[in-house]
Amino acid sequence: MAKITLDDSFCKDFYSTKEYQRMMERAGDALNALEHAGGQGSEFTGWHNPTRMLGCVEKVEEYAQEIRQDSEVLLVVGIGGSYLGAKAVMEALKTQGTYADGNLQVMFVGNNISGAHTKKLIGEIRDRRVSVNVISKSGTTTEPAITFRMIRSFMEDKYGGNAKNRIYATTDPINGILNGIAKREGYRIMEIPNDIGGRYSIFTPAGLLPIASAGADIRAFLEGAVLGYLEYLKNDRSIAVRYAVIRNLLLKQGKIVEILASYHPHLAYVTEWWKQLFGESEGKQGMGIFPAGVTFTTDLHSMGQYIQDGMRILFETVLHVENMYDDVQIPYLEHDDDKLNYLSGKTMNQINAKAMEATIQAHVAGGVPNIVLSVPEMNEIYLGMLLYFFMKSCGISGYLLGVNPFDQPGVEEYKRNMFFLLGKEGSQ
Amino acid sequence: MAKITLDDSFCKDFYSTKEYQRMMERAGDALNALEHAGGQGSEFTGWHNPTRMLGCVEKVEEYAQEIRQDSEVLLVVGIGGSYLGAKAVMEALKTQGTYADGNLQVMFVGNNISGAHTKKLIGEIRDRRVSVNVISKSGTTTEPAITFRMIRSFMEDKYGGNAKNRIYATTDPINGILNGIAKREGYRIMEIPNDIGGRYSIFTPAGLLPIASAGADIRAFLEGAVLGYLEYLKNDRSIAVRYAVIRNLLLKQGKIVEILASYHPHLAYVTEWWKQLFGESEGKQGMGIFPAGVTFTTDLHSMGQYIQDGMRILFETVLHVENMYDDVQIPYLEHDDDKLNYLSGKTMNQINAKAMEATIQAHVAGGVPNIVLSVPEMNEIYLGMLLYFFMKSCGISGYLLGVNPFDQPGVEEYKRNMFFLLGKEGSQ
Repeated sequence: MAKITLDDSFCKDFYSTKEYQRMMERAGDALNALEHAGGQGSEFTGWHNPTRMLGCVEKVEEYAQEIRQDSEVLLVVGIGGSYLGAKAVMEALKTQGTYADGNLQVMFVGNNISGAHTKKLIGEIRDRRVSVNVISKSGTTTEPAITFRMIRSFMEDKYGGNAKNRIYATTDPINGILNGIAKREGYRIMEIPNDIGGRYSIFTPAGLLPIASAGADIRAFLEGAVLGYLEYLKNDRSIAVRYAVIRNLLLKQGKIVEILASYHPHLAYVTEWWKQLFGESEGKQGMGIFPAGVTFTTDLHSMGQYIQDGMRILFETVLHVENMYDDVQIPYLEHDDDKLNYLSGKTMNQINAKAMEATIQAHVAGGVPNIVLSVPEMNEIYLGMLLYFFMKSCGISGYLLGVNPFDQPGVEEYKRNMFFLLGKEGSQ
Repeated sequence: MAKITLDDSFCKDFYSTKEYQRMMERAGDALNALEHAGGQGSEFTGWHNPTRMLGCVEKVEEYAQEIRQDSEVLLVVGIGGSYLGAKAVMEALKTQGTYADGNLQVMFVGNNISGAHTKKLIGEIRDRRVSVNVISKSGTTTEPAITFRMIRSFMEDKYGGNAKNRIYATTDPINGILNGIAKREGYRIMEIPNDIGGRYSIFTPAGLLPIASAGADIRAFLEGAVLGYLEYLKNDRSIAVRYAVIRNLLLKQGKIVEILASYHPHLAYVTEWWKQLFGESEGKQGMGIFPAGVTFTTDLHSMGQYIQDGMRILFETVLHVENMYDDVQIPYLEHDDDKLNYLSGKTMNQINAKAMEATIQAHVAGGVPNIVLSVPEMNEIYLGMLLYFFMKSCGISGYLLGVNPFDQPGVEEYKRNMFFLLGKEGSQ
């Protein structure tokens, strides 16, 4: 089976072989610390071995089947790691057969406090058959908690005593406000393990239930994660190590903004998920690469000028899908009045690949190092492998930088202020 | 009528009064150069006086009316400035009454070269009544040109000789490949003036026809632009000048990434439009602030950690809408098992405003200067005023930086490579 590959030929001129070797040595220690739970934040590395999640698949699939039978809409209530991963997977796979015929619409809610957005939502679901998956470890995160309060009322008004059979809680297995509500009300409960943080939770039921409900094959998705786990395990030359090393070398050269670039609109939310993963893991103590994202060729016509010719503080990581699942061919026109017959017979994805090659050349010539990650196909297995690769590499990269890649102390700051401004009891 | 305001109290501690005064003086010259077409790229400042666009409104409204009568779907074929502005306006207004009952779906296409995306699109429109608005000055930009070739074939197959009555070309008034096709085929033609570039074209038919077709009031939208024009004209203390001055002062302090933050998902594409406007105008000659965007509170749970505590290279511009058109109230729960009764009776937008206040405090305390722009209401008039404000300020800001804010030479680099790789005749 083909692997995900990393091509460093468009970035290695930006650092010396000696620097590279030195950083690779340090990365060996980082890898070791991660794999033996000997580094900072090791109490949150429960995601590292994804084989443990195989045990929950049957139950998740059973619940997903119920949801697909009972509902036209699944509301997924969650924020941050409790929606970005599932959304990324569903968008990346969305034009595949599994989805095209699906009659279930998955809507991600509870990730903002916009009254206008919520009012629109309620109007859209009023007359449809609805199930709910509320995802929160504690149940106290403001955005999903407020939205869930509204949706509970909506469900109870609509379904009465039967509402509880349509609500699925993904939460702490023992403690927390949501766990308490779910037990008292009799919701179905799935567990987010205590040793896995939000941005590393895509292979737990937090990610798996929405994905399975949308019709994707979560066994294949988990298989991809497990294959990645085995591939990168005890391998201090794997692409998980090399990606971590290269981005830290580029950071040392003053390349403080990393742009993840993909060439299909379907991958825009993989980029959003990646931004949380790396930004939240590394952006602390005044350090860390600033993560940004573009969808090409779309954004060549908006961010392209800056990347080509703005401040030289950038590097790009290009996410190349070698075989996308669908394609179309450029037709031949007798009169050729648009002068495009030179492209006829080619497919759009072929042209897209040339655009990618051309862009890499142009940006590297402009002083922007490029790391190219090639994914053989876009399907559940490779997507599982890719997301696992990023998580593993992020842990290594955080250790190389010298931070705890598994905490997020800065996220609490605004919450403290907000609770005080809202007059919450006990806030200060 | 209330104005858009700029609050500098969360950023002015990051520079001295003396620096501010000095930059304000220079800004007077920049303003003068812009208003008297005396600066770099002045041949592309035709957008500056939007009153000239009033003349096209009647024709645009007539075409929009035809489209709404004839069609379930309007395909808008365009890239960069030929879709971002219209999409931004439509999303920002989308939950208003005018849209909720609209039976026309506007789809933005031709802004990528993804075969998977295009295949899906064609499946979705096959059995629906379709009109097309193709937007391109030259007609040679690869992405929209390829897509338009496909859509022309689709329309001719579907409607035969009547296809031409459903195709609207927004293009160069005299020259260019698209103009030629449109004239020969008998499409309706609208003009993009020669002295207005793509990212400044929202108030031309390139923006106005899609917006009007979606059911928004383009007279009010243009009125907002004209009010902005009059407000900021010959006013060297206006917010257009002050925003330009402050961001250049912050750049001098090493704040090289600007994050535009808004608090409603509806504004995400205003941010994308803004990224093109500033990124493409200023990102040249190794200079310019790197533009990034977040939607809060959503992204507080992804990018929040970095902003609070990562590298101190950031400043934020907060887009605050004082009155959003829709809202919902938090209900009271007898049992209060989610401990949220302290919020009951408040509306979501009220809580959102507190979250904003809390976030500004937290980020400023963390070393991130904040500029706060307050828009009194979200409707056509204020949106027109806001987009005009950004365009005017961007021109001034580019002049302060010392670049031509109206060209985009770097966008050509990848195109040259691509044409060569694709074997286009005459490419090198």
